[in-house]
Amino acid sequence: MTDFDTLFLNANLATFCGEGYGEIRDGALAIANGKIVWLGPRNALPSGWAASTDKIIDAKGGWITPGLIDCHTHLVYGSNRAAEWEMRLEGASYEEIARAGGGIRSTVSATRAADERVLLSQAWSRAQALASEGVTTVEIKSGYGLDTDSEARMLRVARRIGDSGQLAVRTTFLGAHALPAEFAGRADDYIDHLCQHMLPAIAAEGLADAVDAFCETIGFSPAQTERVFQRAQELNLPVKLHAEQLSNQGGAALVARFQGLSADHIEWLDEAGIAAMKRAGTVAVLLPGAFYCLRETKVPPIDALRAAGVPMAVATDHNPGTAPLLSLRLAMNMACTLFRLTPAEALAGATRHAAAALGLNDRGRLEVGLRADLCVWQVERPAELIYQIGGQPLRMRYLEGRQL
Amino acid sequence: MTDFDTLFLNANLATFCGEGYGEIRDGALAIANGKIVWLGPRNALPSGWAASTDKIIDAKGGWITPGLIDCHTHLVYGSNRAAEWEMRLEGASYEEIARAGGGIRSTVSATRAADERVLLSQAWSRAQALASEGVTTVEIKSGYGLDTDSEARMLRVARRIGDSGQLAVRTTFLGAHALPAEFAGRADDYIDHLCQHMLPAIAAEGLADAVDAFCETIGFSPAQTERVFQRAQELNLPVKLHAEQLSNQGGAALVARFQGLSADHIEWLDEAGIAAMKRAGTVAVLLPGAFYCLRETKVPPIDALRAAGVPMAVATDHNPGTAPLLSLRLAMNMACTLFRLTPAEALAGATRHAAAALGLNDRGRLEVGLRADLCVWQVERPAELIYQIGGQPLRMRYLEGRQL
Ligand SMILES: [Zn+2]
Ligand SMILES: [Zn+2]
Repeated sequence: MTDFDTLFLNANLATFCGEGYGEIRDGALAIANGKIVWLGPRNALPSGWAASTDKIIDAKGGWITPGLIDCHTHLVYGSNRAAEWEMRLEGASYEEIARAGGGIRSTVSATRAADERVLLSQAWSRAQALASEGVTTVEIKSGYGLDTDSEARMLRVARRIGDSGQLAVRTTFLGAHALPAEFAGRADDYIDHLCQHMLPAIAAEGLADAVDAFCETIGFSPAQTERVFQRAQELNLPVKLHAEQLSNQGGAALVARFQGLSADHIEWLDEAGIAAMKRAGTVAVLLPGAFYCLRETKVPPIDALRAAGVPMAVATDHNPGTAPLLSLRLAMNMACTLFRLTPAEALAGATRHAAAALGLNDRGRLEVGLRADLCVWQVERPAELIYQIGGQPLRMRYLEGRQL
Repeated sequence: MTDFDTLFLNANLATFCGEGYGEIRDGALAIANGKIVWLGPRNALPSGWAASTDKIIDAKGGWITPGLIDCHTHLVYGSNRAAEWEMRLEGASYEEIARAGGGIRSTVSATRAADERVLLSQAWSRAQALASEGVTTVEIKSGYGLDTDSEARMLRVARRIGDSGQLAVRTTFLGAHALPAEFAGRADDYIDHLCQHMLPAIAAEGLADAVDAFCETIGFSPAQTERVFQRAQELNLPVKLHAEQLSNQGGAALVARFQGLSADHIEWLDEAGIAAMKRAGTVAVLLPGAFYCLRETKVPPIDALRAAGVPMAVATDHNPGTAPLLSLRLAMNMACTLFRLTPAEALAGATRHAAAALGLNDRGRLEVGLRADLCVWQVERPAELIYQIGGQPLRMRYLEGRQL
């Protein structure tokens, strides 16, 4: 019997413990039983250990990072919105698109109409695209069903993606994403229904790890959002929020008041919101892909977040309407190019802080005792992962110690 | 003996003949001896033809397009510039970066120092990344050697990529890319040297299909550019130009005066330049990846180009300094998102008009008699190729009738 399952040698480690990359040059890392059991400079590796290892992997001077974590996606939905996107680029007005059945309602209709098998096969190929670039944990939201059955179906599909063993999934109930047609003009009634029926049913089935809402002039009001959060709290589910994307609604302060995991988008976040997030330990989730696709110009207050020490995560926000991107590397590039994060901040945002945004303490860093979710990259420095757009620097991906 | 090598059935065709996509729904396409020998609606396929075909491919309702053409890249170079990119994001000034050996000169040094084998292996993996997303023809420029031997070495590497049979390569001599250190302060002397020695040597070895220059305040003057073009003309090589990227130098009108293949970048292009390009048949090559990476705000005059009927191509401009992207699909998305091309215009720009920008009449459209360079995509409509960023919609890629 050997002590380790796998031992990586000739590797540079970006641990994301401490400052910046938390780098260890010419390092080694050992895995046993799905966890990291040793890491450090190679010359500190006790002699004889290499001999008691099942498998030794030569990382060939490449870099090992924690597996990437995409902490904000809407990966499960029916159909896509390419036709609507094309219409808009051809000059169609919003009314024409609405008349042609476009907008989020078209995704809700297609999602309600799709059975679990169809939803799964489409979402599965999207999850694989993310995984192929190093993602080992993905958050997936509901929010295109907007009735109990359809929301539950979306979340079951998300769970099944996790059951594949190819990547870990965290699910989020986003019933308060948009107002379903059958509640048109009755947003408060829908929130009543959500709190009294939908959310308890989802919680009873154990389908959601967290609860989210879209707090915006075109979404739900802070008061409606607060009712959703109160119900979530009663059901012992943590909350997060689509906040301050298109206007300042005080959403970040609201979610912080509920010790929320994260406030996401936050282009219009103000100082009060930043202070509230800092006090509550709420993570700022940056979604530059939506910013790019929507051609927004208002950049989130990066300098102020940095100065306040609010952790910043970076995610794809993959969704069919405003961010049809399936590349967390591209989202990190956009975080650097458009929001001026440093590459080290962007990568910490897709590992360490993304884990925090999901309330997970068992991953997102290279540290003894944590899950052995990790990537081996064929690059000379970690920034290359982000600087180069496209291409395939990923050499190996491990989930709980298993090579995938 | 059969009449066809391959017959595609159950395919939608985006031919790029005529308006828009030039689409044929429920079509068929036949290949023989590396060329397209028949295409049209499936029900027009003469009966019995399917029986006289070596191989029938069910496209499963997907789309066939011409193979994509990336008509502007700098794919061959030593090292990369991730470190410099990171320094800049960490707040280093241009002087600090220059002092640390950054900028184009660092790429010139690394390229001069790299032997042909190293250059080839790095460029080859970049070419494969482009090919994996459907590129079948790529243009590759020199311009990081800036002496005869190093420029020739770059172009030989480019030719060898073409020799692989995995994608077709067109080479461009870009000796007038930047002033080499040994000619500092003597730009005219360098242009003399280029015209008298470098370009004739490159031409004699048959290494260049075209000649390019960087006409800009930080590059070469219109007068210097003109001398390069005159020499190219004497050597029977077509010309093209990096024009109007950062300022209006009248470069587009200049290259048009030489019946140039293309004027590339053209953010600052004016009406006179557009009229001259129209008269000369010079293609406008849009490079939105560089625009994105440099955070430019001045958009090329798309409406005026469209109104004038100047063909617009779209390319990656892959290079280590200002556009380290390896995805023509992403460049097309950026052309739509940032420059407001329609998806049909962007795809025509990476097929039909990209072929024209390279002076090639034998590809870039689906038409009887043209090369059977084509892609089979698993999408419901062509716009999906561009709308979705990342993921892998490519099912098959053919080069001169061979599946790759
Ligand atoms: Zn979202
Ligand atoms: Zn260029």
